[in-house]
Amino acid sequence: MLWAFASGTTRPMSQDQTTNQSWGGRFSEPVDAFVARFTASVDFDKRLYKQDIQGSIAHATMLARVGVLSEEERDSIIAGLHSIQSEIEAGQFDWRVDLEDVHMNIEARLTAQIGVTGKKLHTGRSRNDQVATDIRLWLREEIDVILVELQRLQTGLLDQAERHAAVIMPGFTHLQTAQPVTFGHHLLAWFEMLSRDRERLLDCRKRVNRMPLGSAALAGTTYPIDRSITCELLGFDAVSGNSLDGVSDRDFAIEFCAAASLAMMHMSRFSEELVLWTSAQFNFIELPDRFCTGSSIMPQKKNPDVPELVRGKTGRVYGQLMSLLTLMKSQPLAYNKDNQEDKEPLFDAVDTLRDCLRAFADMIPAIQPNVEAMREAALRGFSTATDLADYLVRRGLPFRDCHEIVGHAVKFGVESGKDLAEMSLEELRQFSDQIEKDVFDVLTLEGSVNARDHIGGTAPAQVRAAVVRGRDLLAS
Amino acid sequence: MLWAFASGTTRPMSQDQTTNQSWGGRFSEPVDAFVARFTASVDFDKRLYKQDIQGSIAHATMLARVGVLSEEERDSIIAGLHSIQSEIEAGQFDWRVDLEDVHMNIEARLTAQIGVTGKKLHTGRSRNDQVATDIRLWLREEIDVILVELQRLQTGLLDQAERHAAVIMPGFTHLQTAQPVTFGHHLLAWFEMLSRDRERLLDCRKRVNRMPLGSAALAGTTYPIDRSITCELLGFDAVSGNSLDGVSDRDFAIEFCAAASLAMMHMSRFSEELVLWTSAQFNFIELPDRFCTGSSIMPQKKNPDVPELVRGKTGRVYGQLMSLLTLMKSQPLAYNKDNQEDKEPLFDAVDTLRDCLRAFADMIPAIQPNVEAMREAALRGFSTATDLADYLVRRGLPFRDCHEIVGHAVKFGVESGKDLAEMSLEELRQFSDQIEKDVFDVLTLEGSVNARDHIGGTAPAQVRAAVVRGRDLLAS
Amino acid sequence: MLWAFASGTTRPMSQDQTTNQSWGGRFSEPVDAFVARFTASVDFDKRLYKQDIQGSIAHATMLARVGVLSEEERDSIIAGLHSIQSEIEAGQFDWRVDLEDVHMNIEARLTAQIGVTGKKLHTGRSRNDQVATDIRLWLREEIDVILVELQRLQTGLLDQAERHAAVIMPGFTHLQTAQPVTFGHHLLAWFEMLSRDRERLLDCRKRVNRMPLGSAALAGTTYPIDRSITCELLGFDAVSGNSLDGVSDRDFAIEFCAAASLAMMHMSRFSEELVLWTSAQFNFIELPDRFCTGSSIMPQKKNPDVPELVRGKTGRVYGQLMSLLTLMKSQPLAYNKDNQEDKEPLFDAVDTLRDCLRAFADMIPAIQPNVEAMREAALRGFSTATDLADYLVRRGLPFRDCHEIVGHAVKFGVESGKDLAEMSLEELRQFSDQIEKDVFDVLTLEGSVNARDHIGGTAPAQVRAAVVRGRDLLAS
Amino acid sequence: MLWAFASGTTRPMSQDQTTNQSWGGRFSEPVDAFVARFTASVDFDKRLYKQDIQGSIAHATMLARVGVLSEEERDSIIAGLHSIQSEIEAGQFDWRVDLEDVHMNIEARLTAQIGVTGKKLHTGRSRNDQVATDIRLWLREEIDVILVELQRLQTGLLDQAERHAAVIMPGFTHLQTAQPVTFGHHLLAWFEMLSRDRERLLDCRKRVNRMPLGSAALAGTTYPIDRSITCELLGFDAVSGNSLDGVSDRDFAIEFCAAASLAMMHMSRFSEELVLWTSAQFNFIELPDRFCTGSSIMPQKKNPDVPELVRGKTGRVYGQLMSLLTLMKSQPLAYNKDNQEDKEPLFDAVDTLRDCLRAFADMIPAIQPNVEAMREAALRGFSTATDLADYLVRRGLPFRDCHEIVGHAVKFGVESGKDLAEMSLEELRQFSDQIEKDVFDVLTLEGSVNARDHIGGTAPAQVRAAVVRGRDLLAS
Repeated sequence: MLWAFASGTTRPMSQDQTTNQSWGGRFSEPVDAFVARFTASVDFDKRLYKQDIQGSIAHATMLARVGVLSEEERDSIIAGLHSIQSEIEAGQFDWRVDLEDVHMNIEARLTAQIGVTGKKLHTGRSRNDQVATDIRLWLREEIDVILVELQRLQTGLLDQAERHAAVIMPGFTHLQTAQPVTFGHHLLAWFEMLSRDRERLLDCRKRVNRMPLGSAALAGTTYPIDRSITCELLGFDAVSGNSLDGVSDRDFAIEFCAAASLAMMHMSRFSEELVLWTSAQFNFIELPDRFCTGSSIMPQKKNPDVPELVRGKTGRVYGQLMSLLTLMKSQPLAYNKDNQEDKEPLFDAVDTLRDCLRAFADMIPAIQPNVEAMREAALRGFSTATDLADYLVRRGLPFRDCHEIVGHAVKFGVESGKDLAEMSLEELRQFSDQIEKDVFDVLTLEGSVNARDHIGGTAPAQVRAAVVRGRDLLAS
Repeated sequence: MLWAFASGTTRPMSQDQTTNQSWGGRFSEPVDAFVARFTASVDFDKRLYKQDIQGSIAHATMLARVGVLSEEERDSIIAGLHSIQSEIEAGQFDWRVDLEDVHMNIEARLTAQIGVTGKKLHTGRSRNDQVATDIRLWLREEIDVILVELQRLQTGLLDQAERHAAVIMPGFTHLQTAQPVTFGHHLLAWFEMLSRDRERLLDCRKRVNRMPLGSAALAGTTYPIDRSITCELLGFDAVSGNSLDGVSDRDFAIEFCAAASLAMMHMSRFSEELVLWTSAQFNFIELPDRFCTGSSIMPQKKNPDVPELVRGKTGRVYGQLMSLLTLMKSQPLAYNKDNQEDKEPLFDAVDTLRDCLRAFADMIPAIQPNVEAMREAALRGFSTATDLADYLVRRGLPFRDCHEIVGHAVKFGVESGKDLAEMSLEELRQFSDQIEKDVFDVLTLEGSVNARDHIGGTAPAQVRAAVVRGRDLLAS
Repeated sequence: MLWAFASGTTRPMSQDQTTNQSWGGRFSEPVDAFVARFTASVDFDKRLYKQDIQGSIAHATMLARVGVLSEEERDSIIAGLHSIQSEIEAGQFDWRVDLEDVHMNIEARLTAQIGVTGKKLHTGRSRNDQVATDIRLWLREEIDVILVELQRLQTGLLDQAERHAAVIMPGFTHLQTAQPVTFGHHLLAWFEMLSRDRERLLDCRKRVNRMPLGSAALAGTTYPIDRSITCELLGFDAVSGNSLDGVSDRDFAIEFCAAASLAMMHMSRFSEELVLWTSAQFNFIELPDRFCTGSSIMPQKKNPDVPELVRGKTGRVYGQLMSLLTLMKSQPLAYNKDNQEDKEPLFDAVDTLRDCLRAFADMIPAIQPNVEAMREAALRGFSTATDLADYLVRRGLPFRDCHEIVGHAVKFGVESGKDLAEMSLEELRQFSDQIEKDVFDVLTLEGSVNARDHIGGTAPAQVRAAVVRGRDLLAS
Repeated sequence: MLWAFASGTTRPMSQDQTTNQSWGGRFSEPVDAFVARFTASVDFDKRLYKQDIQGSIAHATMLARVGVLSEEERDSIIAGLHSIQSEIEAGQFDWRVDLEDVHMNIEARLTAQIGVTGKKLHTGRSRNDQVATDIRLWLREEIDVILVELQRLQTGLLDQAERHAAVIMPGFTHLQTAQPVTFGHHLLAWFEMLSRDRERLLDCRKRVNRMPLGSAALAGTTYPIDRSITCELLGFDAVSGNSLDGVSDRDFAIEFCAAASLAMMHMSRFSEELVLWTSAQFNFIELPDRFCTGSSIMPQKKNPDVPELVRGKTGRVYGQLMSLLTLMKSQPLAYNKDNQEDKEPLFDAVDTLRDCLRAFADMIPAIQPNVEAMREAALRGFSTATDLADYLVRRGLPFRDCHEIVGHAVKFGVESGKDLAEMSLEELRQFSDQIEKDVFDVLTLEGSVNARDHIGGTAPAQVRAAVVRGRDLLAS
């Protein structure tokens, strides 16, 4: 029994350790021991301790400002909360499952420390609005950390893209050689994906940063609270507009998981390519040993563990998204106990995305392209076939006919083992007498990439321009 | 064989009807008949015909502006496309599976109509950037339609909330009676959810409304295209910044499905409550017969089919989201055939969300609250217990102690079958001698709701203020 | 109005075309036209017409056997149903949305044809148990079709594995060269996956094949039905044991979608490898042209569309599974309208799996391995490093030390550009003086694969033995 | 450095603490510290320690039997492993992240304890087949625990159903009163669902209980292993048939999660009903206080936390299923690092299902029906309307016409506020002159439920018969 010693004005409270002191009055029997463990959340929600204390300090400050608490009471509460935060961070706090959650653990300790005044902190609020506030504060901070890692990864991509703006590799569609592209251009495709992730996280953050505190249990409170004070103290952009919605809204967690799922999908695509490129068959890049591990049985192995693991973690975040969407399906207003299940999926999605971004932000700057292997691959596979068709269009033939002509040339090439640039002029002229000697200019790799010189195109000049745009974006 | 008649300058083309004329040159055998059907998309992507024609007209206009087409060619193409659109809308267009998709069907028909000039339309673009452009145009329009239905539903909620701003019903947490709330306040919780959906759709629309056209197959094109012209003609906000990303990005479809999943989650919550409220046990509202159906075997049944079906359709949209996330997982750059599977899930998510919103927008204004049944339910269940605790706090007791005191009073009430307002002053004073005669004011339903008079609270005055804010929001 | 002409004994029915005649009596206004379309299922559930008629014939037969119908009534009903089936199959049936579903469409037509007796068919049953029976009959048939396609694909794999039992390719882990394996062995890994799919479908079929008919609306019926008669007539294994469960159970559809998701996951893994193997970089196999398509812009392309599309369709089936799981979450007993949403996901999952299996069953026998390219790849990448470690173990060193020794040898090989078999004996003996001349036997590809000669191992002899086991399994 | 002291026969090993000793030879730099943590699994896979040791003991026993280890070596290894298990269970084992996983932690400790012989344990196996074996052993045990909890819950349902076989409550469809049912019948619907879960878990267990050990890294091993020995020692039903599949197959984990998702879906349905039934509006049952918790702000609350939380946990298991399906999508053979992500979802699904079943198995026997409230609810809502229609059928009218007649009677009842049994004979005869005085027998609740007396029907006699069948099933 935690605070009864401070309570002289009323009837004795239940002595039972397994009944939560915060709501025991109406109950005839304590909660079953297994049920107590099954329904408690403190094992995972203690992670919110800092935000819980931050929110309580703001709440106490506001209560004093509107006259519900005296200044002495406020100061006592705030001092107690600071002391509890120190205890927690020193590992000296005794978390108790029978107190259910982070909120009751902290409040009970506060009352144990400062006496009856501790019991006044919960005036005008409920755990329903308190926890919703805590998670939002926590997620807001985590999004900011994620944005930093994202920016670090994006910067690494820009640097690499600039460095390798003119390195030529085969571009693929259907994993078949399509057209030559520059390695810098390829890296910038990833940059674009991450830029959308950044936008989405910022959009999501707007909706995270609204304050449910003041919704109380579900209907608001009868105390003369001033929500604008706590809103400002906690750095929220706005207060939530409806108390029933305020305590039960978990959109922000789902929206974050959806944005995180998209980001992880992008990471899975990078990872897939990194795994392909480090295979003996592609051999396009080198990953430093420090991002790889070996095999306990095959001594020669150097495995691209980091991208594989990131790819594997994609499903994890998709799963958390699905978990939260299912959680909220069909829940009637307002708060239901189901909602306690919102935290672990969200925590896991945050941790996973942050760590994957961090691993890639560390790794990407260390990737080395095998320039020769890339070039050799680009020379194979008739990668300039489209350039030949375009050449014929410039001679006045309709594109569709040019496509057909080049198709026949490729068929001849497959059968004779020659790429287009390796055929003689006579051989090429079998397929169209419009082909002249200048055709060989357009069949070079450099000719091909340089010719795609418009915004979004693969020409080295465009890559460099895109890097500049990217740097501006990140600086903004 | 569709356009060979227009082709005198080159070798004869394959006669085979099952090989697509657009890429047949390099192939030795036609596509297998089952494979042709299995891989064709025309059955579903013909839905994009209008956007495909719109995009082609803009493309032809741009090609003429930069000198790749003559003005006569451009005019001929545009006239042909208009004529094809008329054919399609008149149901006179012969869609051919052997032509694979909407793009080749329209292009083939164009060449059949206007001759060799039709073959020039595809200059400087690919089906890869063409289809990505078509879907974005289509989705942009559909989002706008959805926003209209959403606004209609939100308006209905505001009107109902205003009408019933002072109607009292029990508010629930854990589906247990918690505190009295106003029906208007409850309706506005739904309004808030939908307002976030609106924001998310608008945020999503920004990322939908970017133009991949000009990315060509994957690397950009060698023609002197001017993407700013097509961008402006098609009403896009910006061009995509990287061609590899441009042809393979499907974020916009996934983001839409995520926003739609959240919206459907909200609709499932409304639906759940409507189903509960029309049950004999709750009996809180009446749904007009025209939104209900009966039973083939039980003559008395009047089932709330519309909300049930909407609730059931939630999983459908979640499933489409999961489908698209899975689709894109681990795809290497750039376009892969997998991406053809992007359309059906997106189409279905759009149709489902739009129809569900429409059904609710029609239905919500017709809902009638059973004011008496709501009031009676609010009187049961000790719904003003928190008000009693708050009353005691105002007498100087710490909140936690007041909670305990009231808990004991409730326990007494459960055992004696009396609600708090039904107890005598003496009975109440058993639990605290701080209770005076004025306690009965706070134990009334009106006292309870009127006291929660701060932004977000359930007081009728707050409901009316929130309606005004809502109207402003919708007007903005 | 469909059957009123047959009704002389009672009051006139509603004339309104938009109110379903089957339950209109208690209603004051017709269903809203949009709502009628929104809630109708006939557009998709008409696919069940054959099973619906089959079930009705069995039901009528049973009703006659227990004396609820006369023999004449039964015969009239059965003749009418046969005639309707013919109409439907001839495309002459007028499906009406205002009649909601396949059941009411058929029943209404029956009554139109045979008069008042038609109205007696629905005695002792409800659409709730009727539709549950129809879907199970339908799914049972479809599973059997799928099992045939699966067997066809498995047979193709066995044939190919036998043919290529001794063809050597690199085995990969982490997409890095690991150890040499036989192509036959690799194909049989796929066979094993499919064998588990087969088992799961058979297990699922047991639970599909139980008959809910007789559950009526939710509680059973007051007519003296004999469920064992319909059970036997319809070929069910058993009757469902509880009527409330019988009308609301959709486990069988979910379980099918879960089994189909696993099967599609397997197909996505095959597909991924086929796409990799047809890339220029791997070049391990040839796909015949008839399973590929080309590009509208790049004349040289031959894309592995079939495996890509199958891979893309994986998400589709996952999505349907998630859709159905979400659908059923939290539904109270018994039937709710939500359940109408069970059909489209199930239909789509069935069609997708069946078509993907069919495409692969056609394609797999036509795949040609590039034996030389496979062998050359297996020679690279130190694929026999484990064999060297095992050699040293046989000389008495602990495995962990041997692993370390070979690791150093590989490092030397990476730096000097030599595979293990290319090093001289002196070079190898730098790393351990236990290495003797006979080491070169274990460093050959054949030595390596032949040595893994135990059940499950890659040795050609084991592949051939596994093919025999596989044939026996399929024959059983 | 853990075992170098035991290694006198070969070259010195790397001293670096951050490189795993098991594969370091070929690497030039240690793994990055963050990467080491990011890629390590020991934090969660240490949960498999018991199965890992069990598998190693069987492996060592087999190696000795086939002559690869001496008997002394085997005994030394086994004694060492037993000692390690004791250390772990006493909480004295020092788990090291730099050793990556449970396997290397145990093996390193073994070598530290028993010297060079410890290094021989890994002969003829790989972590790839080792971990696949460990998980299967672990899951097999957990399934058996789950089956016990399931049986305990099913037994509780049978006992309650027997006790309340004749208690009458309203049966619902669409949450509208449909027909009277017995409470026992309702409970048995849940029993049926769980019986299918039991079947599915047993089917799944068959596929869990196959042994991949002997697959080694991917291709089998060159040592003369005898897989039948380890198979028998470990109690597996069979060995896996293909090594490439053996190391990469995770079907069993997915299939378990699918079965668990279905089970949780059922639990969500029970939960939904329990939450409804404990609401003030339904008031059908009492949950003992020990399965409920209160509110920190509303003193009167007694919330059905256990069913709410179970309902909320449904999404968790769905999410883990989706996570694993996504994980395996498109993975090429054989083992990839992605697969390390298989464990946490599986562990969480197992824990969640087991704890939810346990909570319900404890709670269900303690539920008390409010018999009077149920009965009163069944009397309202025209629950015997179908009985009236059936009565008229027995008078010779076609069912469809009877339905229409009763519909009109219900409409009259709604308007006049009378249930069918409350109308006078004259009033009833307004709708059909076939109605006689004996109609009142069929309009009673008892008449209604007793009349549904066939297998699966709601009659008390059928409930009791079903309880007997259920007991037989559980005993089998």
